[in-house]
Amino acid sequence: MERIKRNERLAAMTRILTSTPNRLYTLSEFTEMFGSAKSTISEDLSILAAALRQFDLGRLTTVAGAAGGVVYRAIPSREKVISALNDLCRRLEKPGRVLPGDFLYTNDITCDADLCEVMGQILASRYYDRAPDFVLTMETKGIPVAMMTARALDVPLVIARRDSKAYEGSAVKINYISGDGSDRIETMALARRAVTPGQKALIIDDFMKGGGTLKGMHDLMKEFDVSVVGTGVVIAKAEPQKKRVDGVTSLLILEGVDRETGAARVVPSDWIYTM
Amino acid sequence: MERIKRNERLAAMTRILTSTPNRLYTLSEFTEMFGSAKSTISEDLSILAAALRQFDLGRLTTVAGAAGGVVYRAIPSREKVISALNDLCRRLEKPGRVLPGDFLYTNDITCDADLCEVMGQILASRYYDRAPDFVLTMETKGIPVAMMTARALDVPLVIARRDSKAYEGSAVKINYISGDGSDRIETMALARRAVTPGQKALIIDDFMKGGGTLKGMHDLMKEFDVSVVGTGVVIAKAEPQKKRVDGVTSLLILEGVDRETGAARVVPSDWIYTM
Repeated sequence: MERIKRNERLAAMTRILTSTPNRLYTLSEFTEMFGSAKSTISEDLSILAAALRQFDLGRLTTVAGAAGGVVYRAIPSREKVISALNDLCRRLEKPGRVLPGDFLYTNDITCDADLCEVMGQILASRYYDRAPDFVLTMETKGIPVAMMTARALDVPLVIARRDSKAYEGSAVKINYISGDGSDRIETMALARRAVTPGQKALIIDDFMKGGGTLKGMHDLMKEFDVSVVGTGVVIAKAEPQKKRVDGVTSLLILEGVDRETGAARVVPSDWIYTM
Repeated sequence: MERIKRNERLAAMTRILTSTPNRLYTLSEFTEMFGSAKSTISEDLSILAAALRQFDLGRLTTVAGAAGGVVYRAIPSREKVISALNDLCRRLEKPGRVLPGDFLYTNDITCDADLCEVMGQILASRYYDRAPDFVLTMETKGIPVAMMTARALDVPLVIARRDSKAYEGSAVKINYISGDGSDRIETMALARRAVTPGQKALIIDDFMKGGGTLKGMHDLMKEFDVSVVGTGVVIAKAEPQKKRVDGVTSLLILEGVDRETGAARVVPSDWIYTM
């Protein structure tokens, strides 16, 4: 193999590590890929770690030992989180987003790949130590941000449906109280083969009012003998204060809406300031 | 500012460019970020382009002129596409995936962030020159791959729903023939504010049998005065040969299923061999 220069190795390693966040690469994988000595790759990784740190582009962590290697995590700094979430609040507070029934139009936010990536990175950064086996969401609006959270954690996404589908095979179906004001009974279904008993789930959704849908997902996981290691949402409504699920990590709080101006009041959650 | 070494610049530039595919960065953005001369940044970019090319990690393209700069596109090589799609076929052909009604269980594939990223990159690579303004999909299963296609193109994702929702505001709702064998009339809805007349849509879905849902999305776009510049799916069923939409790019072809063994026959589409 033609001798590869450090510059080229660094560019390639950056792309490989950062495009597969939270995945462990052994030094041997890189020594084979580039035909370089372990000591050389170690030096490369130190340079890479320093550069990522300096420009607030995530963290490269070395894992020691026989099963060791290096892991990239796209953990944003507190400053970056505060700035990103305040930007988001300003966008959500622009007049015209409040719909009849005091609903807030958020589709452009929840379907933006960039924003979902950042939101997913922030949500994931709270749950690395809980090591979830998959991210669960309920169709439809939470899927993009749940997908990006799953990507940041390097785990699969699992999508609960409103009803079971022929193309998903045998399914477990539960009833839950939607708690969207009307306390309607809704159904939620998940293919039996989607998860394995004993796994750990991280539940992610776009929005929480009373927490009914989240509670439904918790109940669904019980049916599968799966433990829930965390629950996160993009926006939580301030009211009602009492939610059906405790300990939900929310990025933003919807404090209320002004019907006259058609503007919402949205603020980042307190915890981001003490990250 | 402390002087930044080429190594560190290269690592940071790789992360920045590759995490926002298809986005134009001017040289000035980098000269300001790193406090380096334009000629230095140009050299960096040449090194980066060569490294990405050498390790098949996508393409860095320089755009000349006053509005010029540099764009990263995660275009996989033909070899990588062939290898990725053949891997996918082998996974889909494993016995046990065929469900009653000859449906193929694909949720683990369509919800895998890595696979969706690769599939999105391949689908996007067919449509860069058509410059779509957004990617449209119909809930639910196509959302992750459509999201990753949108990300590769640096455009928003738009999700059509089965019905209009109070939290999406006024919507356009159409009827379409699902064409899933039963020729049922289904409905499809999209929030009025989701798209703008005159825009260009790329339609992406996970699966096509007769093409009824895709045709529905084409019809929906007509209602919005949006032109469709392309249609792509992950898997197309070989039968019926006549689809309701022409010119659909499919990654894989589902040729049929063997009910006895519970195994499907899935092959990559021909076009990947002549990319």
